[in-house]
Amino acid sequence: MDAAQEAQRREAFRHLVLNALERRLFFIPSFKIYRGVAGLYDYGPPGCAVKANVLAFWRQHFVLEENMLEVDCPCVTPEVVLKASGHVDKFTDLMVKDEKTGACYRADHLLKDYCKEKLEIDPKLTEEKATELRHVLAMLDDLSSEELGAKIKEYGITAPDTKNHLSDPYPFNLMFQTSIGPSGASTGYMRPETAQGIFVNFKDLYYYNGNKLPFAAAQIGQAFRNEISPRQGLLRVREFTLAEIEHFVDPDDKSHPKFAEVSKLEFLMFPREDQVSGRQAKRIVIGDAVSQGIVNNETLGYFIGRVYLFLTLLGIDKDRLRFRQHLANEMAHYAADCWDAEIECSYGWIECVGIADRSAYDLHAHTDKSGVELVAHEKYAEPKEVEKLVITPVKKDLGLAFKGNQKMVVEALLAMEEKEAMELKATLEEKLEAEFRVCTLDKVVTIKKNMVSISKEIKKEHQRTFTPSVIEPSFGIGRIIYCLYEHSFYTRASKDGDEQLNVFRFPPLVAPIKCTVFPLVQNQQYEEVARSIARSLTAVGISYKIDITGTSIGKRYARTDELGVPFAITVDSTTSVTVRERDSKQQIRVDVDKVASLMKEVTDGVSTWPDVLWKYPSHSS
Amino acid sequence: MDAAQEAQRREAFRHLVLNALERRLFFIPSFKIYRGVAGLYDYGPPGCAVKANVLAFWRQHFVLEENMLEVDCPCVTPEVVLKASGHVDKFTDLMVKDEKTGACYRADHLLKDYCKEKLEIDPKLTEEKATELRHVLAMLDDLSSEELGAKIKEYGITAPDTKNHLSDPYPFNLMFQTSIGPSGASTGYMRPETAQGIFVNFKDLYYYNGNKLPFAAAQIGQAFRNEISPRQGLLRVREFTLAEIEHFVDPDDKSHPKFAEVSKLEFLMFPREDQVSGRQAKRIVIGDAVSQGIVNNETLGYFIGRVYLFLTLLGIDKDRLRFRQHLANEMAHYAADCWDAEIECSYGWIECVGIADRSAYDLHAHTDKSGVELVAHEKYAEPKEVEKLVITPVKKDLGLAFKGNQKMVVEALLAMEEKEAMELKATLEEKLEAEFRVCTLDKVVTIKKNMVSISKEIKKEHQRTFTPSVIEPSFGIGRIIYCLYEHSFYTRASKDGDEQLNVFRFPPLVAPIKCTVFPLVQNQQYEEVARSIARSLTAVGISYKIDITGTSIGKRYARTDELGVPFAITVDSTTSVTVRERDSKQQIRVDVDKVASLMKEVTDGVSTWPDVLWKYPSHSS
Repeated sequence: MDAAQEAQRREAFRHLVLNALERRLFFIPSFKIYRGVAGLYDYGPPGCAVKANVLAFWRQHFVLEENMLEVDCPCVTPEVVLKASGHVDKFTDLMVKDEKTGACYRADHLLKDYCKEKLEIDPKLTEEKATELRHVLAMLDDLSSEELGAKIKEYGITAPDTKNHLSDPYPFNLMFQTSIGPSGASTGYMRPETAQGIFVNFKDLYYYNGNKLPFAAAQIGQAFRNEISPRQGLLRVREFTLAEIEHFVDPDDKSHPKFAEVSKLEFLMFPREDQVSGRQAKRIVIGDAVSQGIVNNETLGYFIGRVYLFLTLLGIDKDRLRFRQHLANEMAHYAADCWDAEIECSYGWIECVGIADRSAYDLHAHTDKSGVELVAHEKYAEPKEVEKLVITPVKKDLGLAFKGNQKMVVEALLAMEEKEAMELKATLEEKLEAEFRVCTLDKVVTIKKNMVSISKEIKKEHQRTFTPSVIEPSFGIGRIIYCLYEHSFYTRASKDGDEQLNVFRFPPLVAPIKCTVFPLVQNQQYEEVARSIARSLTAVGISYKIDITGTSIGKRYARTDELGVPFAITVDSTTSVTVRERDSKQQIRVDVDKVASLMKEVTDGVSTWPDVLWKYPSHSS
Repeated sequence: MDAAQEAQRREAFRHLVLNALERRLFFIPSFKIYRGVAGLYDYGPPGCAVKANVLAFWRQHFVLEENMLEVDCPCVTPEVVLKASGHVDKFTDLMVKDEKTGACYRADHLLKDYCKEKLEIDPKLTEEKATELRHVLAMLDDLSSEELGAKIKEYGITAPDTKNHLSDPYPFNLMFQTSIGPSGASTGYMRPETAQGIFVNFKDLYYYNGNKLPFAAAQIGQAFRNEISPRQGLLRVREFTLAEIEHFVDPDDKSHPKFAEVSKLEFLMFPREDQVSGRQAKRIVIGDAVSQGIVNNETLGYFIGRVYLFLTLLGIDKDRLRFRQHLANEMAHYAADCWDAEIECSYGWIECVGIADRSAYDLHAHTDKSGVELVAHEKYAEPKEVEKLVITPVKKDLGLAFKGNQKMVVEALLAMEEKEAMELKATLEEKLEAEFRVCTLDKVVTIKKNMVSISKEIKKEHQRTFTPSVIEPSFGIGRIIYCLYEHSFYTRASKDGDEQLNVFRFPPLVAPIKCTVFPLVQNQQYEEVARSIARSLTAVGISYKIDITGTSIGKRYARTDELGVPFAITVDSTTSVTVRERDSKQQIRVDVDKVASLMKEVTDGVSTWPDVLWKYPSHSS
């Protein structure tokens, strides 16, 4: 199959899936009766149940299993917090405007579309030009505003809808802005991620954890990005649910006590070097990846392994899941290492979970901005002797010399790093005075030997104080769910062969409804049995759908297969019932009074279908 | 105890509770290291767990039990939706500004504070004046902007902080406003309630339910109110979690098939009449309240009963819970009836759940604004003959007479109600012409007999089309949780009697952590047993806290009592352990390999503590 055919096949498949999802209300374009809003979607009843199941499993798999400290912070966030984190200044995309209509576009999207289209459909394209366009595509994320603007001019790219000229690219901040309180004086934003709420609480959480490292905090909640022009349907939206973990660890010891539990897992990894040299992702044992230094440390490796287990247990196809390491130019300067769990779907490989070692960046940033020290301590078994720089300004002499500026000079002296201080000391000893730059005064002053004493002293320290590193697995829940839909979807012929029927092969863990209850025919006795089974299911906490319409049993199966319901209970006698499994269509007979507990067993994962298959008599319809 | 002493006692109690809650991180003032933002709070780890438990139980008790259709809609909402719902025009509080500093206050709060203070502390107050102030307090919610302004002037009320003059009151909209998309042209708001997301989806949800009524949809999510100056701590906040149910029902039949299941419940109710005539709330059987017409209909009564069960099962004290009916002046004009579940806490009686019959208001409003019919149909068993008004404009003659205005005249004719149409018909028959007002032209035109035919015809109808009524139970989750904290809190003397220890008596359902695991003394064998018990607890999904510090067992109990942990497992042998219940402090001995399943039994509610007490040998410490 060539690339164009493959693209067509993918699009046709996506169309089938989206059609089933929208018809069965897995999702609904938000505010549809008002013609909707781009990038906003509702979860309808089955979608909402899938989401609740995914989040419950996330809590079980991460929060409960690791004793994480879960918090729940508001979405409305004051400006100072997002100033400290860098979002106010840097959380932008480059935008161009149609010069006549004012319509807005993402500059990189227009350039990307232009290059792709040229490469695909222009038969007159020279090999030289093709190489250039491919180079632009590869460099897209690295282009500056000026470079993007120059390329758009050079290629004569115009507004897609009107062919009008475009403005130069300029940064547009992706946060939804609002105002907190009635005065209008206090700017706020809807948070673009949940992580900041955890960082600002570090001090309290560390205390809650008995002042011990490592520990992890977690948060599930809404995040917001005011996308310039959302594309890719359910994958690029303006409001979404994030589940984030911030694991705080001593930067000098990133080992993980439970690493052995995942170290033997093998899965597709795509290290930086293989990407650069044009190789493919390959299967690597995570233990080897850590020991060979491909993955920076054990804690990062542990989380990669746990994410792999989480996604595959949900039903993500392990052959279409890979962990891709960020290239040097993708990664923030402070990050030690970063891996994305990417899932392949009809849109290509999609980043669904980011697992980053962010070093001490975030805690440093909030310490600087708030003045509150976000640090950890390690008590030494015995006090240690350390050499410490001691700077003692002589305030009397400084006061005489600098009067009102004395305070600024003193602060500048105390702020010196070791190297600068020792150089100043040497100059003072040699020449008795030295030139010294005071940034806050924006001038150079003369310091005399009597004004400051600088020395190194041996001091006893009882503890080490340090800023913890943070390892952050961050889950885009909506993206995971969308990929899960695609990986779970298949079609099969109807019994008479004249129709293709849709099925979602959700595992019971994820399925929006665990079973259906059908009386085989409309009759009061069967209906009563069905209702009593329904009551027992509610009592054990199993969600079900009861269908007492007279529709044919085949149609009723087809309807629930399309909702991904794993088990169907057909009431065809008053003492025992038929239980059918969705994918194999195998059927067994079970006593009426045992069926609820059987459903609990197979949906809780205590037993699998093959486990129960040999325990009960089979039934052929 | 007089009123002042009682107020002091309440405040002291609240102080104790808040102190425990904040110290143990049930809540944290949001963005604390930046000095916080009024009205925003985080749930810390135990608070977050309590919230997750309350929401999980809500889903079980309402959504699963009633087969409700749960949806999940975005917080960002376009203006048109909230214009239709009335929030853009009417969701306001009256505000006054300090004329010099610009500081903002809620006008009614200032007047309320003034009246209360005068009544409490002014010894020279005449009886006449006191009566007036009490009257103002009673009427507070009914005062118009002008009346509020006049009272503030009359009493000489000034800005509390500066004593400066205040502006006249003016309405301030409580929604957080933002802009959707990059152009700035599309106004959006953070939703003030979750209900609108359900109403706009009515058509799809009705279809999903097989075009059958009644059915209920539900939503849990964040809502936002930009309060002018938040007071009352955790009770009046700017962002909060709502859980809302919209139960759609035929307005001609508001019976409920499961009403018998709650009809015998008896609890404190406070009907409108008793409030007006100054009586107290009294215990009423809900079945009687419905049959005597105190509660408008069975469905409303059913939900009142279910809400009572929900709150008391969570641990709300039934003697400090009442259902108060809205007075006529509190209720929206369209509402058929409305009851608030009010819980008494140190702030007084607090509205925590509103249960309203909103009639067809919301669906009508969105039908009008969107042009999409949000209606239901009832098929008749046999077609019915009905008399129908038929208006047939004669377009040719109207066109000749009105030319460009023809369309507006035709629309106005077709829009006539039956009474107006029959009057016009009579006039035309008598006088051959009639004056007719066309609103859209803002003028009166002359209609001649030949221009329109009006008649009544017998038509066969196969179905009835109607707008469903909606009954809305709406839960303020944060308020319920805060009241639960107060109702669960008590203190008791420490063993040596020299200290008062805090305890939260949460039922296992709500408790943030279900049990703790302590080795009695620090030793490797006990620690291993503790860790193996911890693993079994994780496997059965029970949250626990392990404490291997050498702290005395009494201190460790005290710490976990203050978190409301119901059970403590003390490892004091390698084969069996001691299990202690928090409130009774009773202890039993349980085999190591049975303790996890016992914990599951007592926390899932399969058994109670008294159930297990006689099954296991007791242990005296």
